[in-house]
Amino acid sequence: MPVRGQAGTILKRTDIQVSINDLVMLRGYGAFDYLRTYYGVPFRIKEYLDRFESSAKGMKLKLPVNRKKMSSIVSSLLHKNEIHKREKSAKNVGIRFLLTGGYSLDSYLPGIKPNLFILIEDLPQYPQWWSEKGIKLMVHEHNREMASVKTVNYITAINLADERRKRKAQDTLYSSHGQILETTRNNFFVFKGNTLITSDSGILFGITRKVVLELAKKKFKVEKRALYTHELKSCTECFITGTTRGITPVVQVDNLKIGRGRVGENTKELMQMFYDLVKRECE
Amino acid sequence: MPVRGQAGTILKRTDIQVSINDLVMLRGYGAFDYLRTYYGVPFRIKEYLDRFESSAKGMKLKLPVNRKKMSSIVSSLLHKNEIHKREKSAKNVGIRFLLTGGYSLDSYLPGIKPNLFILIEDLPQYPQWWSEKGIKLMVHEHNREMASVKTVNYITAINLADERRKRKAQDTLYSSHGQILETTRNNFFVFKGNTLITSDSGILFGITRKVVLELAKKKFKVEKRALYTHELKSCTECFITGTTRGITPVVQVDNLKIGRGRVGENTKELMQMFYDLVKRECE
Repeated sequence: MPVRGQAGTILKRTDIQVSINDLVMLRGYGAFDYLRTYYGVPFRIKEYLDRFESSAKGMKLKLPVNRKKMSSIVSSLLHKNEIHKREKSAKNVGIRFLLTGGYSLDSYLPGIKPNLFILIEDLPQYPQWWSEKGIKLMVHEHNREMASVKTVNYITAINLADERRKRKAQDTLYSSHGQILETTRNNFFVFKGNTLITSDSGILFGITRKVVLELAKKKFKVEKRALYTHELKSCTECFITGTTRGITPVVQVDNLKIGRGRVGENTKELMQMFYDLVKRECE
Repeated sequence: MPVRGQAGTILKRTDIQVSINDLVMLRGYGAFDYLRTYYGVPFRIKEYLDRFESSAKGMKLKLPVNRKKMSSIVSSLLHKNEIHKREKSAKNVGIRFLLTGGYSLDSYLPGIKPNLFILIEDLPQYPQWWSEKGIKLMVHEHNREMASVKTVNYITAINLADERRKRKAQDTLYSSHGQILETTRNNFFVFKGNTLITSDSGILFGITRKVVLELAKKKFKVEKRALYTHELKSCTECFITGTTRGITPVVQVDNLKIGRGRVGENTKELMQMFYDLVKRECE
């Protein structure tokens, strides 16, 4: 029978239960973050913990433990899940941090004690052709509430799942008043020749975005600035970045083919550079 | 020890636990609604159930039971909580419907079976002076995501609690590009003389709003239309409507006093009419 976890308890994922009085249930009030392992090793965990701490602050929620402690909990969870003993392909897992509003007395104002969950989970699987042939995005007018804070609110993203299926798009690109922002869970990049451009405001600042910008600076001109939908016509390549899949090439946005509908050479080069960096840091 | 509720189980509120794999936890994906009793009797339950059904549809979630069944569950919960045996003042309770995204396989896409919770709870208490002397609102630029659907997302509302305290405001009035929408949980009305005006788009359509409009038509000219912040200067009275408190007079918006800072006569008359209607329908 599942038991309510006391502070510090380690439970099987299926046994973790949360009181209905938690504000994350009643009011969608929670911050989270999500990183992954490569070769069984958490990638850039310090940077993810920085962002998680900053999201908690944005939500005015107090983290019950410090970053050092969170990092050591992640290590012991990976150990307990015997990630190090797994064969190579099974060494890649997701690590989710969730900080909820806590138990509220009046179903509205945050409780005094937020609840922190640290979860190990399988990585979602995506078709191989996404990275080989590139995906299609559909544009949707929307700017995420408190965009720079990673909250649990994915209502619009999830609500559009049917529409994506209908339009044979793999992800949704949010735009606001002609300005391109980000996709539901990834940052958006374009190449115009050898210049790489990505949005710099109204977005969640991805850790993968940051790593890709570091790498790109070595080879390309980089512009971080407002990017407009009317510019898509003159783009030669396009891709998105996120924790789970790293770099995913994009070959179509709505009805517009990017780079004649093929994955660009600069994108391929960045994908290789990213792959090499991950190998260097984690293997 | 708390147990996981099976379908159809009645549990003590403090014993209701939800799996962390439910999308409402991981992605804030859930619809809800909230009604109350007067004199121990649910007020306008059919209209609330209509709206809840419409919100479920907007969220593309399938309600596991029909409206008739939900209505009969509410009756049996009220009976089990012995509301009918309580003394007069304790007969007023809140009834919350919550429909979650269900258990997700990949922590992103909705599960096949949403989870439905029907909760009886104490009404939140507000100071008596709110209805006697009127409250102050602070304006904040924000339009709610999927405004006409009652989702669990109250992130901005809750995040602004500190700011309200600092500015000595009791609620936040959302405006978007100069247009007044609604407060965090109430609809917004103004009088210009004997003309009552309320916003008609970009809002959640309150049941109390509807009842007040029905009543107002008998005595006043009524305009449902876009209402602009610059119009506030020429308003003679102001109030907000919501399930918990019915009509709450407003005497100040940011630094602007409305009607010389006193509760207006038309507002008082509507409050009395609303009180009488509730008595007629529920006592």
